[in-house]
Amino acid sequence: MSVQLEIICVGNELLIGKTLNTNAQWLAKRATSLGLSVRRITVVGDDVEEIAAAVREALNRKPRFIITTGGLGPTFDDKTLEGIAKALNRKLEVNSKALQMVKEKYESYAKAGRLDSAELTPHRVKMAKLPEGAEPLPNPVGTAPGVHLNVDGTDIIALPGVPAEMEVIFDESVAAMFRKEAGDLTFYEASIYADNIMESTLAPLIDATMHDNPYVYIKSHPKGEEKKPHIEIHFSTTAKDSKTAKDRLGKAIIQLSELIKEKGGKVKTFKAP
Amino acid sequence: MSVQLEIICVGNELLIGKTLNTNAQWLAKRATSLGLSVRRITVVGDDVEEIAAAVREALNRKPRFIITTGGLGPTFDDKTLEGIAKALNRKLEVNSKALQMVKEKYESYAKAGRLDSAELTPHRVKMAKLPEGAEPLPNPVGTAPGVHLNVDGTDIIALPGVPAEMEVIFDESVAAMFRKEAGDLTFYEASIYADNIMESTLAPLIDATMHDNPYVYIKSHPKGEEKKPHIEIHFSTTAKDSKTAKDRLGKAIIQLSELIKEKGGKVKTFKAP
Repeated sequence: MSVQLEIICVGNELLIGKTLNTNAQWLAKRATSLGLSVRRITVVGDDVEEIAAAVREALNRKPRFIITTGGLGPTFDDKTLEGIAKALNRKLEVNSKALQMVKEKYESYAKAGRLDSAELTPHRVKMAKLPEGAEPLPNPVGTAPGVHLNVDGTDIIALPGVPAEMEVIFDESVAAMFRKEAGDLTFYEASIYADNIMESTLAPLIDATMHDNPYVYIKSHPKGEEKKPHIEIHFSTTAKDSKTAKDRLGKAIIQLSELIKEKGGKVKTFKAP
Repeated sequence: MSVQLEIICVGNELLIGKTLNTNAQWLAKRATSLGLSVRRITVVGDDVEEIAAAVREALNRKPRFIITTGGLGPTFDDKTLEGIAKALNRKLEVNSKALQMVKEKYESYAKAGRLDSAELTPHRVKMAKLPEGAEPLPNPVGTAPGVHLNVDGTDIIALPGVPAEMEVIFDESVAAMFRKEAGDLTFYEASIYADNIMESTLAPLIDATMHDNPYVYIKSHPKGEEKKPHIEIHFSTTAKDSKTAKDRLGKAIIQLSELIKEKGGKVKTFKAP
């Protein structure tokens, strides 16, 4: 049984197309390679009701983990924790560990001469207001801590939207939780490239290969233009060890490559898995 | 009242982090610039139940438009139309207009010597099986037509996942529908860049400026490192004409720039809106 993750990205900049959602891709790739299965990615704006609805809906699907990105900072439109609290019907309260983290950050900034005052203004204290029962996750490269709480078997983890901050908190505080749950399952993948064959001709060959290789998922990605079809064929499997994975992927790749050649296609690039 | 759009992107490659979701950004940016408001972006895998659930949930929020991307091709895992049909409790049926489009494509490929046979194999006919009541949208650069249907006041538009195909069908068949609904509202935006000020110091200045400029939305995007804060400040408004928009954005930009300078910050780049 796969360990499921949902990702919720918060930010108007994603909904107006100003920002490309590289955070979702980074997290999805990392979680997949750690053996988790990402079930859904949801993007909502900086709106408490929208955030709360997305969190509630995700919880109803009972994934093992929910990660949110964005909306943890000091400005009026950083509303993720308010949205999570609303979804859970919990209060936001100043968390003393989080406040200590924020305080130390501003003291170090003031010491370095980058601030007139390390005063804990309301906008700074805001970053230490967490939903009841949550714990802060240290942010070594920014001010707003990450946030972690468990709700009926689902761990909710809120990470900042600034990629460098999100990535380091994930690596230092989240990856180990994922590894522990996923055990020794790992995701393996490999691609080949087919030319001189149309996707509709390739489709039944993929069907046949998947039928004979039940643990391998095969997906075609047309990359060329209509006039010159160039198709990436992506093979993936989740396995406990690399030998099993390589055997599975290798067998499927050889079988499909031969079928493509029989139809007059060219398998242009063969990377051993 | 804004015209709302939801975007649903279908594809395992997005959930495993193999593919960066540039389609969502392209559509969000285009729709926003045409005066629409993107409410939510949802990414699900190549799974009929997951697609159907996402479509049903979006319909329940009653947006004016839903666009799906991906899953229209000839392979076994192209399941978007099956998912939409399931969500609507409609049958999939061969649409004669769509079949004609697909047929003409393969005939032209065969004529050009790129295919042994233009035979309408089951995998090719699949692309012409649409939910009852739907109409195909011509795909000038690929094989699978786009799909359009109206359900209780929501227009659902299914576009291919290949970016070039998605973009041209949007431009030729969808943009005009959006323009008609949004009327003459247009989205305007401008950015300035602030250095030498931390986001938590900037936050109350944004609050004050937004309070005095109720039609302008202001959002800060930290871009630098912790040691050297560099913040993009993005101003946006939706207006019927560019003069109104420029006046609004200009007034807000000047006010906030002055507040930043009073706090010792530097407004590094000023681009007139």
